[in-house]
Amino acid sequence: MSRNLPKVGFIGLGLMGKPMAASLLRKGYSVTVFNRSKKDVEELVALQAKSADSPKEVAENSEIIIDMVTDGPDVQDVLLGPQGVIQGAQNGTIVIDMSTNSPDVAISTALELEKKGVEFLDAPVSGGDKGAREGTLSIMVGGKKEIFERSIPILEAMGKTITYMGKTGSGQAMKLCNQVAVSIHTMATSEALLFGTSLGLKAEEILKVLTSGAANSWNLQNLGPKIIARDFEPGFKAAHLYKDLKAVLRTAEKENLPLPGSTTAYELFGAVLAAKDGEKGTQVVARILEKLGERKIS
Amino acid sequence: MSRNLPKVGFIGLGLMGKPMAASLLRKGYSVTVFNRSKKDVEELVALQAKSADSPKEVAENSEIIIDMVTDGPDVQDVLLGPQGVIQGAQNGTIVIDMSTNSPDVAISTALELEKKGVEFLDAPVSGGDKGAREGTLSIMVGGKKEIFERSIPILEAMGKTITYMGKTGSGQAMKLCNQVAVSIHTMATSEALLFGTSLGLKAEEILKVLTSGAANSWNLQNLGPKIIARDFEPGFKAAHLYKDLKAVLRTAEKENLPLPGSTTAYELFGAVLAAKDGEKGTQVVARILEKLGERKIS
Repeated sequence: MSRNLPKVGFIGLGLMGKPMAASLLRKGYSVTVFNRSKKDVEELVALQAKSADSPKEVAENSEIIIDMVTDGPDVQDVLLGPQGVIQGAQNGTIVIDMSTNSPDVAISTALELEKKGVEFLDAPVSGGDKGAREGTLSIMVGGKKEIFERSIPILEAMGKTITYMGKTGSGQAMKLCNQVAVSIHTMATSEALLFGTSLGLKAEEILKVLTSGAANSWNLQNLGPKIIARDFEPGFKAAHLYKDLKAVLRTAEKENLPLPGSTTAYELFGAVLAAKDGEKGTQVVARILEKLGERKIS
Repeated sequence: MSRNLPKVGFIGLGLMGKPMAASLLRKGYSVTVFNRSKKDVEELVALQAKSADSPKEVAENSEIIIDMVTDGPDVQDVLLGPQGVIQGAQNGTIVIDMSTNSPDVAISTALELEKKGVEFLDAPVSGGDKGAREGTLSIMVGGKKEIFERSIPILEAMGKTITYMGKTGSGQAMKLCNQVAVSIHTMATSEALLFGTSLGLKAEEILKVLTSGAANSWNLQNLGPKIIARDFEPGFKAAHLYKDLKAVLRTAEKENLPLPGSTTAYELFGAVLAAKDGEKGTQVVARILEKLGERKIS
């Protein structure tokens, strides 16, 4: 199977990273993994992954290194820290950061890696853990075109729609742009349901009418029924969307770009975290609006 | 053709009303029309409509009377004013207000008409002038169920999806609910495009990625390309959406219901009117965000 496939390193075996690394193993790649929690490492070792004791050691054994960690500081720690990838990577190695953070983090990380002759792509994903398990993620990629092209096979081993967005940071920019639309849409779904039911309409009827015309959205179709069923389990966690909105607004701030809708959504998701509901799905923002109005969608 | 079809009156021959009245004529209804501008009346007379000199005179010659005017005060003027429908309508006449205004207007109008034994339905529409011309409007109806059922044939002569929402005012409630989602979605489309292009992404690429996943909406698919093409011609006029958002917030205010997203959209559409762009399509709200950020989506 592994006819000259590059040796891959994978750092960060969370809800997303673990199934993504498993996809690579299934496709015949040799994968060296690192993760803080050892239980997840063992699961992948059972699938023939090799285990390393640090990101540095991952780098020493890999030609392409993927990281899938939580936030910008984690990325910089595993890539640039004292036990980081940069300490073990050879000239010509490709690092692909598939976490969601911000264009700034991508640009500064790429610059640091470049000093050691290490290439970098920012390649955040959408499609959730379901997409990760099924290998159907949408992957938005920024970086040098040539490095992107060399990385297509490995990206295709994890995702279905691979889109090259442009220079370093463009993958993160596209992902944040996606989160702008997603968070505002979740607010729209929640407000429409709360306003309508508050006036005596049936929630199911509201959804039926809205999704049949110019008000339709993926969000209404997929999160609307969950809100009505009071199902707040995460497809995508509210805490992660809040973190992404923070990155959106910090990025916009540097550009002096006011984003009134995103700012409003950000405040509401802040209230979700204040209510200790960050581990719930993003649709839990409906509960904040319910709390503000002292009534329920029902 | 007209085997006992009820005689219909139609008041308000604007962008929407004229093609709706024309649909009724095509279906074989005898239609008596009233409109302030006589040019529009002549067009319908050429299609065999009868012309009346006042809403009162329309009522004297009709069993079912439809009005399609701009706002709540217009509705109350043509229905309840000194030359209004109520002065000429007989006991048992059905009045159908197809304008968009608010549940309150519907409830108070129905009460006044009821004193003269006149029935009332609130039945606002969505689908725009295209839907009106093609007879494919979505019609959201509030009022007595029995009166709704008797009115189905005439509603079906103008629309494709006829939904009974419940008691008087429910049609207006559903329409306002629709406008909540529509206005917030338009803000989402505009912010996502402005944020992304501001970071150097191509607008067409942004739309392609957003509409292929969880960020997808009718709004992105239909208004996104118009914004990119700088096409601000109206499908639906910004001034009308602003008027509807005003009705949303006044209605929510009476319920002590905070709607942060709708309020933000309302402020932006207020700025559209301040910029004298009310006659443009709703997608022109993108220009307000561009102005705030001193840059363009391109």
